[in-house]
Amino acid sequence: MTTYSAINLIARPTGGPIGPELFEIVQKELPSIGEGQFLVKQNHMSLDPAMFGWMSPDTESYIPPVALGDVMRSSGIGEVVESNHADFKVGDRVMGMMGWTEYHLSNGAGLNKVAAPLPDEAILSVFALPGLTATQGLFSIGKPKKGETLVVSGAAGSVGSIVGQLGKADGLNVIGVVGSEEKANWIVNDLGFDGAINYKTDDIAEKLAELTPKGIDVYFENTGGPIQHHVFERMNAHGRIVVCGLIADYAKQTPDLAPNWIPIIKKRLTIQGFTMPDHFGDIPTLLEKLTPYVMQGKIKHRAHVLNGLESAITGLNLFFTGKNKGKLIVKL
Amino acid sequence: MTTYSAINLIARPTGGPIGPELFEIVQKELPSIGEGQFLVKQNHMSLDPAMFGWMSPDTESYIPPVALGDVMRSSGIGEVVESNHADFKVGDRVMGMMGWTEYHLSNGAGLNKVAAPLPDEAILSVFALPGLTATQGLFSIGKPKKGETLVVSGAAGSVGSIVGQLGKADGLNVIGVVGSEEKANWIVNDLGFDGAINYKTDDIAEKLAELTPKGIDVYFENTGGPIQHHVFERMNAHGRIVVCGLIADYAKQTPDLAPNWIPIIKKRLTIQGFTMPDHFGDIPTLLEKLTPYVMQGKIKHRAHVLNGLESAITGLNLFFTGKNKGKLIVKL
Repeated sequence: MTTYSAINLIARPTGGPIGPELFEIVQKELPSIGEGQFLVKQNHMSLDPAMFGWMSPDTESYIPPVALGDVMRSSGIGEVVESNHADFKVGDRVMGMMGWTEYHLSNGAGLNKVAAPLPDEAILSVFALPGLTATQGLFSIGKPKKGETLVVSGAAGSVGSIVGQLGKADGLNVIGVVGSEEKANWIVNDLGFDGAINYKTDDIAEKLAELTPKGIDVYFENTGGPIQHHVFERMNAHGRIVVCGLIADYAKQTPDLAPNWIPIIKKRLTIQGFTMPDHFGDIPTLLEKLTPYVMQGKIKHRAHVLNGLESAITGLNLFFTGKNKGKLIVKL
Repeated sequence: MTTYSAINLIARPTGGPIGPELFEIVQKELPSIGEGQFLVKQNHMSLDPAMFGWMSPDTESYIPPVALGDVMRSSGIGEVVESNHADFKVGDRVMGMMGWTEYHLSNGAGLNKVAAPLPDEAILSVFALPGLTATQGLFSIGKPKKGETLVVSGAAGSVGSIVGQLGKADGLNVIGVVGSEEKANWIVNDLGFDGAINYKTDDIAEKLAELTPKGIDVYFENTGGPIQHHVFERMNAHGRIVVCGLIADYAKQTPDLAPNWIPIIKKRLTIQGFTMPDHFGDIPTLLEKLTPYVMQGKIKHRAHVLNGLESAITGLNLFFTGKNKGKLIVKL
């Protein structure tokens, strides 16, 4: 084999589902590696909601958008297949931002070796962006205290499912908001959430009141949408709102307005947004915090695996429809 | 004189201007003072936007609402005219929550002696709620750094005018939002703000862009209204929004919605509300922080004085119309 496939971003989304017209599938020659370089054959790529930010034209965002014509940005795991680099040997397993490509030429920058004897799916589902994001947001902004009530939207998603399990492990009352009965059953019966709200079929206000009789202390926001307004009304004094994702708003040309700020004063709320690139330097600390929960078997995950590079394009739309079951991963 | 006047709250506001039907003016007999009690003749009462919260039926608010039939809550300054209390002597000048009343019977709880040789108006305008609120909000939540840009809404108001002056004293670029040319001139020419936006006559977006070429790092929100949306769009990464008041929303039965939260993620913003009753224990520290600015002549104020107890009722509506010029005070 002397050629491989990659996918370049060639246009920016304008709201609504992601279409094939935003991308160009290209065939490339396998490069010859120079001194200090190595070639990685990528085996699994991660699909994450943060990608909508990376595709967007907004230059004020937290990291520069992917330049038009460049390989679409993503993280993944692969194996070194050729090397002129002293620290990376053929056969080494590596993780990092390799993009939508079957092969990735690297000088080592931004790639890390994976030592843990876990399958790629487990690494990408827990120890990569989802677990780091859940750990950073819940503990640094949510500051949960035992006995408090935590509500998580997008609770069956890659981040939300870990947030809820971390909350349960720390003695919180945890309620998840999801978009299907299957997901509701999964987070309650398999992950141990105290309750689930199906925003598509439940009377949200009524169910939320029933499941949070003592109000809400921490809201971990992954979705936006109507749940945001209902949760806002039930926040307790000194409540914390962690704004991690707004998937319901990303696809809209004119995103919905948010609740009036009067409760922010009356309840002395704190609302704080974050993105992981600000905290890449804290990854060792975050992993140190997260690992014991995983080791104690308190963090379950499930991966939703798509097959083949091109499946990434339509795969992204599963974030909007909510039809993915677990962490979205593309197997190459 | 054996009788005096007081005003009781007898109904709750439902949005819109405050009407006389919410209050009952009563004549009372001067009480005889018991052991450990003293009688204060109140000279000046403070009118503050926080009063709308105290009148509201919302039991989730930061302090219990005024009970219907009780004297309307307010702070003020007066003089001890009779005393059976060891610590308060006839002639002592005292400040505290005395309510809408000409005379106040006390056991000392919640009242403090005023030692500073300043007129009542200066005390109520700077060293009472306005100055404490400005100091707490700007420094604890706004965390301003020299060279940053601060935007203050309600900038000619009792809190906003002090916030802006504290910001200028600390080397910030300070822009104030006001509702008249007279106020715009006052904050720029007398208080030293770097610029003013008249939200009633200026093109807000255009003027804001012109006055904040480097974006906005701290927004001190006293009003709500359209300015909130424009400021939100111009917040810099890691910006802080201090939510202190929303006077434009208090009078509405259905308050306006707020900006969508996407910028909270992209810019990693922090939005935090506060009210002073949470920080009454910090008053000595806050006064220690505020006093040097006042001593160095960096905090100017102006009082808008109304005459007679009953003027408090219509006086409250000046907060909605914005027709007050400076700190609202009722002289008894």
